[in-house]
Amino acid sequence: MPQFLDTTSPDFEPAFVALLNAKREDSPDVDATVAEIIADVRARGDAAVIELTAKFDRLDLTPAQLAFTPDEIAEAIDAVSPQDRAALELAAERIRSYHVRQMPEDAQWTDPDGATLGWRFSPVSAAGLYVPGGLASYPSSVLMNAVPAKVAGVGRLAVTVPTPDGQVNPLVLLAAHIAGVDEIYRIGGAQAIAALAYGTGTIAPVDKITGPGNAFVAAAKRRVFGKVGIDMIAGPSEILVIADADNDPDWIALDLLSQAEHDESAQSLLITDDAGFGRAVADAVDKRLRTLERTAIAGASWRDYGAIITVRDLDQAAELSNRIAPEHLELCVADPAALAEKTIHAGAIFLGQWTPEAIGDYVGGPNHVLPTARSARFSSGLSVMDFLKRTTLAQMTPQALRAIGPSAERLAQSESLQAHGLSVRARLDSLNRPPI
Amino acid sequence: MPQFLDTTSPDFEPAFVALLNAKREDSPDVDATVAEIIADVRARGDAAVIELTAKFDRLDLTPAQLAFTPDEIAEAIDAVSPQDRAALELAAERIRSYHVRQMPEDAQWTDPDGATLGWRFSPVSAAGLYVPGGLASYPSSVLMNAVPAKVAGVGRLAVTVPTPDGQVNPLVLLAAHIAGVDEIYRIGGAQAIAALAYGTGTIAPVDKITGPGNAFVAAAKRRVFGKVGIDMIAGPSEILVIADADNDPDWIALDLLSQAEHDESAQSLLITDDAGFGRAVADAVDKRLRTLERTAIAGASWRDYGAIITVRDLDQAAELSNRIAPEHLELCVADPAALAEKTIHAGAIFLGQWTPEAIGDYVGGPNHVLPTARSARFSSGLSVMDFLKRTTLAQMTPQALRAIGPSAERLAQSESLQAHGLSVRARLDSLNRPPI
Repeated sequence: MPQFLDTTSPDFEPAFVALLNAKREDSPDVDATVAEIIADVRARGDAAVIELTAKFDRLDLTPAQLAFTPDEIAEAIDAVSPQDRAALELAAERIRSYHVRQMPEDAQWTDPDGATLGWRFSPVSAAGLYVPGGLASYPSSVLMNAVPAKVAGVGRLAVTVPTPDGQVNPLVLLAAHIAGVDEIYRIGGAQAIAALAYGTGTIAPVDKITGPGNAFVAAAKRRVFGKVGIDMIAGPSEILVIADADNDPDWIALDLLSQAEHDESAQSLLITDDAGFGRAVADAVDKRLRTLERTAIAGASWRDYGAIITVRDLDQAAELSNRIAPEHLELCVADPAALAEKTIHAGAIFLGQWTPEAIGDYVGGPNHVLPTARSARFSSGLSVMDFLKRTTLAQMTPQALRAIGPSAERLAQSESLQAHGLSVRARLDSLNRPPI
Repeated sequence: MPQFLDTTSPDFEPAFVALLNAKREDSPDVDATVAEIIADVRARGDAAVIELTAKFDRLDLTPAQLAFTPDEIAEAIDAVSPQDRAALELAAERIRSYHVRQMPEDAQWTDPDGATLGWRFSPVSAAGLYVPGGLASYPSSVLMNAVPAKVAGVGRLAVTVPTPDGQVNPLVLLAAHIAGVDEIYRIGGAQAIAALAYGTGTIAPVDKITGPGNAFVAAAKRRVFGKVGIDMIAGPSEILVIADADNDPDWIALDLLSQAEHDESAQSLLITDDAGFGRAVADAVDKRLRTLERTAIAGASWRDYGAIITVRDLDQAAELSNRIAPEHLELCVADPAALAEKTIHAGAIFLGQWTPEAIGDYVGGPNHVLPTARSARFSSGLSVMDFLKRTTLAQMTPQALRAIGPSAERLAQSESLQAHGLSVRARLDSLNRPPI
């Protein structure tokens, strides 16, 4: 059973704080191992990557076999059913349409002093996308990372995906193909991150690495950060559903379970203004858990981290939601737009009962890579901005320098940065000299 | 003397690669000390902060004295000269005007399937700004961090600035006042970062921490990242000037020295298509170094990390610039706009000979917090975006769910995420049931 909390109970506040602070992740400390792997790949390049792939994935490769060939990709893709292909294509197209709208505008203007100012966005030249192997090898994640990169204009996009014992998920290759990925390597783990960051004889280095992974991958991304850019290090998934009594308890139960089935560390929370509805959802969860394929995982998540919170009214629900700052927020209430105005900290909001969170995982259009562990207070989901950088532009004229240069000189003097001041002063003096 | 490189020399490539890879920063490993300080502040709050401030800053405070009072701020500000105040106000106004234009638009639209999609930006609720004490206590940095935060709409902005032996820079307090900072604490070091991240009895926690600092501050920011957001961890400053022979060598020398005087680890590079001009700049640097106040610092930086590179033409200059990905890029050439089109990796570009980089440090308008150490390949300077986060929005209708729900269900099945698929299926089935 999940926790049942009620804001009218005198014990509510400490129980809620405990829920907020529950440490759900128990990452093994693999940093020393990862440091060795990265050093090895930096020193020995392909040879190290090949040895580590033989060791961890039981796969013997030559340098020429590190990358999938176009024929291998085509053959794998041919095995995908037309229905799966159509679903992936629809998802890719919707993700593309959404992310195209995120492209920011360049700007340039001249101010009254004659200074021309502005900025320019340009794509990262090369990006790497890590795709996990095995159970968590999700083609949808390939689309969610690769499509924004290509929309942003990344010239070279390399995917790494481990293929333990040679097993490959053809849908991952198809998703990469649909998204326009340029290179796919059959490697994984910290060695793949090191290869992307530093390059090997076969694999050219990239400037930015995104994508989810296990503890080794996360530790490696932390270590190469600075040498390359990385996306967030995601924690276990979370959902908060705010629902009034005018919902089908079974639908809400399935929405809660669709996070819980990801991971025993996932967290599914329900806030409702009707205690009876909360109990009905709990019953519906129990009923669904009896038949779910991933019942062990989903059951453990729901038991250990699930909670149903009864509130006085929806304003109180919004207050608690803002303290939770959930990754996914479903608003199953009569006026979801009004409630969304008040829920200001959330990675993604799903409005109304016809918008199960699973729509957002696949085909909605918005990105499913979202801030976890309350970081929606200060960060955002993946977007085209993760594959762009801004260069600011400034051009002074003699007139502009006359107008604002003396203030720069003054501030430089106050900061004891003499050369800063002189670089302005030398130019101003030249303007004050009478023409010969 | 700096290095002289010439692209026509057979030794050029290895020399240039060595220049790119020169490790200029030698940070002491203070991580263990910082971990203890953070744990102490988390455990004992104000008491720990007060003890550490007595120890490191030789300053005895009560909890009530941690924050500057409005009277203390007013008194310090009164001592600032009208000229300094006017310069700071001009800088603040120009920074504000520039950053207001960066504010992104919210968006919402309904697609042909009936799905309403969009996003919403909202400010971080509370931010903390670290300001170093002593020599590197720059009022301009207060403006560059605090103004974008306030433009973004941050509700509560707290500054920490250490005041060793009680010494305070009144210009820092004035800059904070002009920028609309809400709280100023006379604390510094890792203890200030811990107090901002976790809160104490006196200091409420924030959601995001920005601002430069020493090795202790940098290590503390790394450690609290995740609990709060942080800005970049900046390395030593850099400038690349691309100049043709039609420039005053003294101006270019001063521009190079205005980076070199920051720090012995700073790097100043000149690329020119005229070897004679390069030598003239080197001579001008030597001459200026004889009279500069910070000649020891600037001289060491120029000697150890400075370089003058002669290229065949400006296209080759652009190629090298993109490999360097400089923090600051000055284009002192006849057609700077044309060259700027080709220099795609740079934090900030200063176009033309009337735009010394120092203008950008103070009054240009663009931010002076910029990506260092070649990270302009994948990251951007500070902006209002650092104090905003995006929430994505999606609302399906029955019609939209009918159109795209089956694809979501199909993909969920392919990823063995049964509850995901069922959460869509349950809703689709309800639409297919005949009305009673």
